[in-house]
Amino acid sequence: MKDIVAGVDIGGTNTKIGFVDAQGEILVEGGLPTAEYELAEHFVTALDAAIRKMLAGHDDLRLTGIGIGAPNANFNKGTIELAPNLNWKGIVPLVAMVERQTGVKARVTNDANAAALGEMIFGAAKGVKDFIILTLGTGLGSGIVIDGEVVYGHTGFAGELGHMTMVQGGRECGCGRRGCLETYASATGLVRTVMELLGDSREESVLRDMKSSEITSRMVAEAAAAGDGIAAEALDRTAHMIALGIANAVIFSSPEKIFLFGGLAQAGDAIFVPVRKYIVELTQPVFRGTFTVEPSGLSEARAAVLGASALIWKEAQ
Amino acid sequence: MKDIVAGVDIGGTNTKIGFVDAQGEILVEGGLPTAEYELAEHFVTALDAAIRKMLAGHDDLRLTGIGIGAPNANFNKGTIELAPNLNWKGIVPLVAMVERQTGVKARVTNDANAAALGEMIFGAAKGVKDFIILTLGTGLGSGIVIDGEVVYGHTGFAGELGHMTMVQGGRECGCGRRGCLETYASATGLVRTVMELLGDSREESVLRDMKSSEITSRMVAEAAAAGDGIAAEALDRTAHMIALGIANAVIFSSPEKIFLFGGLAQAGDAIFVPVRKYIVELTQPVFRGTFTVEPSGLSEARAAVLGASALIWKEAQ
Repeated sequence: MKDIVAGVDIGGTNTKIGFVDAQGEILVEGGLPTAEYELAEHFVTALDAAIRKMLAGHDDLRLTGIGIGAPNANFNKGTIELAPNLNWKGIVPLVAMVERQTGVKARVTNDANAAALGEMIFGAAKGVKDFIILTLGTGLGSGIVIDGEVVYGHTGFAGELGHMTMVQGGRECGCGRRGCLETYASATGLVRTVMELLGDSREESVLRDMKSSEITSRMVAEAAAAGDGIAAEALDRTAHMIALGIANAVIFSSPEKIFLFGGLAQAGDAIFVPVRKYIVELTQPVFRGTFTVEPSGLSEARAAVLGASALIWKEAQ
Repeated sequence: MKDIVAGVDIGGTNTKIGFVDAQGEILVEGGLPTAEYELAEHFVTALDAAIRKMLAGHDDLRLTGIGIGAPNANFNKGTIELAPNLNWKGIVPLVAMVERQTGVKARVTNDANAAALGEMIFGAAKGVKDFIILTLGTGLGSGIVIDGEVVYGHTGFAGELGHMTMVQGGRECGCGRRGCLETYASATGLVRTVMELLGDSREESVLRDMKSSEITSRMVAEAAAAGDGIAAEALDRTAHMIALGIANAVIFSSPEKIFLFGGLAQAGDAIFVPVRKYIVELTQPVFRGTFTVEPSGLSEARAAVLGASALIWKEAQ
C-alpha cells in the first residue's frame, strides 16, 4: 500500500484534483466544474464522488487526507469566507463538510499559502526555515514562512502583502483602498503601468496599437524583448515596485529566501535581473546580502495541487 | 530561596540592572556607567562585579540567569553588532562573554524585542499569542510576536518596522535611505512634521518662537492641547502615519493587539484617538475590527529591565 493525499485546487470555474505521494509525484488526476454547483453541499458530495472514482482500480493507494487550496480560505477555522469568485455565499465550513462526507482528514488554506507549503515540502524551499513566496498573477498573493511554519495570525488571514500600502493616494485597488502593492506589482499592475506611460509619454510603441483590455504581461515582456521602450520602462518600474515590496517584507521577518511565482515571474531574467538590481539599494542596510530572490521550484501546472496536498503531508512529517 | 533573573538594560551612557522575580517585581536595583568602558571585556567584568555586589547580603535570592537588552543586539547569535552608540566596535559575543564571566545563563536581544517579551510575560500581552509592540521614541522600534514567539528571522535582526518605506523619495533616514516609517512616526518624526508645517503655512504658532533643535514631542502635545493649530495638525499627521504603518504590519501577521510604547505613546488620547480613527479607513477590509491598539502595560521606568529579564523568564515557563 502506498499512502497518498488528494490535493484539491478550487478555482472559480474548475476544481483540479491530484493524488500526490510523499515524493511529490502526481499519480492520478481528476476534477470537477466548480461553477456548476450552486451550493457548497452539492460541491462536497461531487468532490467525494470524484475522489472515489479516482481511487477505483487503485487498490494499492491509501487516501490519508485531503488538502485544499481555495480563494478566501481560512486555515485556522477551516472555512471559505465571502469568496467573491465562488457561488457559495457567506462562511462555508468546508473542512468539517469534507471530513464528514469523506471520512478522512481535511485542511484548507488560500492559494498563496498552499504555494508556500508546496515550495517547502516539494520545491525550492526544502530545508529553508524562513522564506516568503510572492505569487504575481492577476493580483499579488503571499505566503510567509517563519521558523518552518506558515504565518496565519490571529484571524487566519495573515500574509496579504499585496495589500501593503505603497503609494498613499495611489492606484485604486479592488479592496476599496488606494496604492496597494498589487496595483503595481502584478500582471495587472504591469499593464496599468503601460497605460500610464502611454498617456504620459509621446514615444512610439507597438502597445499603442492594441486594445488596453487585451494587453497581457506576456505581450509587454515580448515587446520589451523586441526593443519597445515603453514596454521596457513598464517592466523596469514594475520590478522596482516588486523590489520595494520585498524590501518592506524583509524588515519584518528577515527571510533567507524570497520566491517569485506566477505569470510575471515566468518573464524570467526580464523581471529577475531588475528586481535583484533594485533590491540592493532598496533594502535596509542590515539586511543587504542576507537573502536571495529566486524563481519557484514548482511548475505552474503542478504547483496548486502539490501545494494543496502539502497541507496534509506537512502534518505527516 | 527565591529565584531571580538579572535584567540588564545597556544604554549608550548607563547600564541599569534589576533583580526581577517571577512575578515581575524588581527586588534590587543597580547599575554601571557603560560609556566608561572602552572595551567590552572590561564592561563584562564590571557587570559581573555589580551583580555580585547586588547579591551580597541577599542569601535568600538565587540568580538563575542574566537577560540583556542592548542596541543592535542579535538574539540568534548572542552578539551586539556594529552598535553606533556604544564604544565597542565590531561584533561583540556578549552572551558567551557574560556566561563565561558569571557562570549563569545569559541571553541578549534588542530593546524593542525586550519590550515585546516584557509585555508578554509581565504586561498587557499576557495570554496574547499574536501581537506587535511599537516603541515610539527617537526612532521607531518594533517587536513582533507570532504564535507566542518573538520573530527573529534568518539573521536575528527581524522586526525593523521603523524602516518600512512609506514614502518613496521621502524624508532622509539615518539608515541612508529615504521615506522610512520612523522619519514620520516617532518623536523625532513629529518634530520634523512641525518644521514642514511651519515652512508650508503662514499660521501663527507658539512653536515659531522656539529653536527647532529644542522642540520635543511633549512641547508639541502641550501646544496642541492649548489650541495651537500647527501642533494639532502635526500630531494628526503623525497619528495618520502610525496608523498606516500599523495597517501595513497587520496585513503581514494579523495580530490580535498592537501596543504603543515610548515618549509619543505617553501623549495618551492626543495620539491614541486619531490613530484609532485612521486605523478604520487604512486597514485592509478583511482585518478591520480584528485587532485593537492599546497602550503598553508597563511603565516607562521599569519596562527595559523587566523586558530584559523576560528573556530568561520566558525560557523558564
